[in-house]
Amino acid sequence: MTVEKQMAELKLRLREISDLEGAGAVLAWDQSTYMPPGGVKARGRQMATLTRLAHEKLIDPAVGKLLDDLRPYEESLPYDSNDASLIRVTRRDFERAIHVPPSLQAEIWQHGAESHQVWLAARPDNDFSAVAPYLEKTIAYSVQLADCFPGYNHPADPLIDMSDEGMTAAAISDLFQELRQELVPLVQAISAQAPPEDAFLYESYLPQEQLDFGLRIAKDYGYDMKRGRQDLAGHPFMIAFSPDDVRITTRVDSNNLNDALFSTLHETGHGLYEQGVAHELEGTPLAGGTSSGVHESQSRLWENLIGRSYELWSHYYPDLQAQFPAQLRAVPLEAFYRAINKVEPSLIRTEADEVTYNLHVMIRFDLELALLEGRLKVKDLPEAWHARYEHDLGLHAPSDVDGVLQDIHWFWGLVGGAFQGYTLGNIMAGAFFDAALKDNPQIPEQVAQADFAPLLAWMHDNIYQYGRKFTPDELVQRVTGGPLSIEPYMRYLRQKYGRLYGLELFSS
Amino acid sequence: MTVEKQMAELKLRLREISDLEGAGAVLAWDQSTYMPPGGVKARGRQMATLTRLAHEKLIDPAVGKLLDDLRPYEESLPYDSNDASLIRVTRRDFERAIHVPPSLQAEIWQHGAESHQVWLAARPDNDFSAVAPYLEKTIAYSVQLADCFPGYNHPADPLIDMSDEGMTAAAISDLFQELRQELVPLVQAISAQAPPEDAFLYESYLPQEQLDFGLRIAKDYGYDMKRGRQDLAGHPFMIAFSPDDVRITTRVDSNNLNDALFSTLHETGHGLYEQGVAHELEGTPLAGGTSSGVHESQSRLWENLIGRSYELWSHYYPDLQAQFPAQLRAVPLEAFYRAINKVEPSLIRTEADEVTYNLHVMIRFDLELALLEGRLKVKDLPEAWHARYEHDLGLHAPSDVDGVLQDIHWFWGLVGGAFQGYTLGNIMAGAFFDAALKDNPQIPEQVAQADFAPLLAWMHDNIYQYGRKFTPDELVQRVTGGPLSIEPYMRYLRQKYGRLYGLELFSS
Repeated sequence: MTVEKQMAELKLRLREISDLEGAGAVLAWDQSTYMPPGGVKARGRQMATLTRLAHEKLIDPAVGKLLDDLRPYEESLPYDSNDASLIRVTRRDFERAIHVPPSLQAEIWQHGAESHQVWLAARPDNDFSAVAPYLEKTIAYSVQLADCFPGYNHPADPLIDMSDEGMTAAAISDLFQELRQELVPLVQAISAQAPPEDAFLYESYLPQEQLDFGLRIAKDYGYDMKRGRQDLAGHPFMIAFSPDDVRITTRVDSNNLNDALFSTLHETGHGLYEQGVAHELEGTPLAGGTSSGVHESQSRLWENLIGRSYELWSHYYPDLQAQFPAQLRAVPLEAFYRAINKVEPSLIRTEADEVTYNLHVMIRFDLELALLEGRLKVKDLPEAWHARYEHDLGLHAPSDVDGVLQDIHWFWGLVGGAFQGYTLGNIMAGAFFDAALKDNPQIPEQVAQADFAPLLAWMHDNIYQYGRKFTPDELVQRVTGGPLSIEPYMRYLRQKYGRLYGLELFSS
Repeated sequence: MTVEKQMAELKLRLREISDLEGAGAVLAWDQSTYMPPGGVKARGRQMATLTRLAHEKLIDPAVGKLLDDLRPYEESLPYDSNDASLIRVTRRDFERAIHVPPSLQAEIWQHGAESHQVWLAARPDNDFSAVAPYLEKTIAYSVQLADCFPGYNHPADPLIDMSDEGMTAAAISDLFQELRQELVPLVQAISAQAPPEDAFLYESYLPQEQLDFGLRIAKDYGYDMKRGRQDLAGHPFMIAFSPDDVRITTRVDSNNLNDALFSTLHETGHGLYEQGVAHELEGTPLAGGTSSGVHESQSRLWENLIGRSYELWSHYYPDLQAQFPAQLRAVPLEAFYRAINKVEPSLIRTEADEVTYNLHVMIRFDLELALLEGRLKVKDLPEAWHARYEHDLGLHAPSDVDGVLQDIHWFWGLVGGAFQGYTLGNIMAGAFFDAALKDNPQIPEQVAQADFAPLLAWMHDNIYQYGRKFTPDELVQRVTGGPLSIEPYMRYLRQKYGRLYGLELFSS
């Protein structure tokens, strides 16, 4: 076979896998938006079948043969060319997939589905004992999965690598340690100040008007509704079926203006990334965000660095007031800005503010490592959770529902690698935004005019178009000129919250 | 392998096929309801991949081997047992699939997709010449497909067999000939009468209130919303992902009370059938309606024989008046009943009344046979269409948009076998309802109380639960005790419309 034929054959096989994955994503979207309750059983089976078939097609020895045969061609091409990147990234996916025996993979999927069902039932009953045996099995499976990749330093490393390629428990622990040292005094300094008034955010707001306002900003950001849509879901998410069908969901609470608005901007950030992947990568493993962390950098950037900025609301707030005069007429812009950026230690990660959010993530990350190392037993997990919350946030959850049972992540198959992406994303958001500002210092003024096109174009040129071509470390190096640093992110937090809370010490 | 293991292996393979088909159905539903325009390209590819994989899994020689090995077991079982039926129906599907070379199958799918796109573009332009070459190719493919099943009497026979198994062009032509002889004088007699007043149906009706009213009756019929839902779509349809996730769609016209209401009841009929399939058949080829005709018998029965009956409206009409007082307060029940049953020759099949509808179908059926036989050339089709409408309905369409371009059926892959099911369904609806009335003469009184449970239970016991176990002829024989006869259906039409239009001659 000529190289051309080999590439065509590889792309054909990858497109079939991409089609199966895209179809599975449609089924997942439907399950979370419109599926009637009766559909759940068949849907689980249909999705499992699509996942299994996609996996079978990836681990086909013919794929391995093509990848071997194409190595000289790959090496003859620039690293960032489409073909070299495709071969390289496919090889990584292939290697990762063939290291896992199909029987173990099937067991993990099956266990994940059962574990999820048990968690769904146990949560309303605050019954950790019901999930405990499943979680023990989950940890055993996670270690077993890690053991498929011998040579790791920490059992979490291969698991982290699956969502944040190239990163390790040690590197992330170092980064998080640095971050914690900066964050804790910041949170303490903020907590010593009088909290801003925010009761007006929890008055009654008509759901449809909330949704319309959020979507208006999403569209202004550049989210293309011809290639996307927004629906309601219990837990907001973004999902892509192709770069031309990228959907976001939100939820809406008639007594909480934050909920729909900022979850919409968060998911829009994910959506902008997926909509921005170059079309020539469609139908290949390169079409999509490169890692959990980089994806989260975009959701957090558009939700927080832009979406909770003074500049943005200096533009939109008069319209928001006009939309909700009874609730907001008497609230000045500055007070609104302070309210949507209120910092307050809390129990629930998904409701946490921008500053304390990372403390939630780091607690989980540390507990994951301890569980995988065997230093922490499942039976002791709820207490370890409470102890860490007490220590880091000064709070003790009244029950496990608001404790270890709050997040789905550990209850659908794996422990390890599930949470670090959120804080990596925050750090990267700071680093990427800093780089964007260096290239274009006008961004804040542009945001104040609701002119998001220059920032979006920068993200497109520097990040989105490449899809999965680069690892997160490679991308950070390309974009910021160095390794991932917490400095720009911390500088952003210190400036913003120093000013908001009048902390002289921190204002640069 | 033991018989048990063979059955388990067969069921596992069939479940995988069913999962792929169910997934494909979810994608089709999404495409017609919520998909943004940008999604169309990837969606076409994803659906094609699922269809191809399901086909590949069906024609796997291992399936043929299992079916062969299981023949003695099948023959040891009662004909209507689950296992014997599963083996028998799977064998038919398998034989049908392996007769078609995969390359031809792929070409037909590809051609169907292209042809559909061309039709979509040509229709607004009234441009038959744009679709003509595609239609010629479609006819050639249809004949080529028929030739994969040698020994037929008419090239339409194998094509008809795919949707209405066991039926033939000759048998259907005879039945339709009989029907036409009865229908034409009935239509003529009705046309000689003064038409009922129905302008009030075309006043302004709030869309949401229309939808709510239709869905209320659907639920009263017994359509289970825990295992279904209704959404809007350009062309109403029913689609099932499993017996526990059966969805209907409708459209709504604020100036036409008929549209949403009766399309909802029509699709509900399809939905009741699919929701009624026995759960133990789920995940097998037996889960679903047995044929195009039998399926249509249910949609037409619940739409027309029940949904346009005097009894039903004697119950619901006061509420409909209360819902739309400005439009209906001054309209008595009798006048409403006459209006929703107005008979009037028209150009568009989907808008035709219960009596003339079959004339539309028979025109298409006859033209299909002529095209396949080569008696009629594609270039002469528009004129042949107009001539038949002139002859049978006394109308001449002003353009091909209201002529040969109106239906999608010939423009997505095959000619032959596409239309007969609609009229077979009407005939069967009459036959099944007649049998139900014999078993339970109280049905009309029950309908007048909005008590549909006895009729639904009868349909469930006699038809729905069996899924695809029986061919349409077998089912008709079992349910009515004889072959399919037009007599009950014509008796129903004569009685109903004889009374409505004061035709002494016809009122039994």
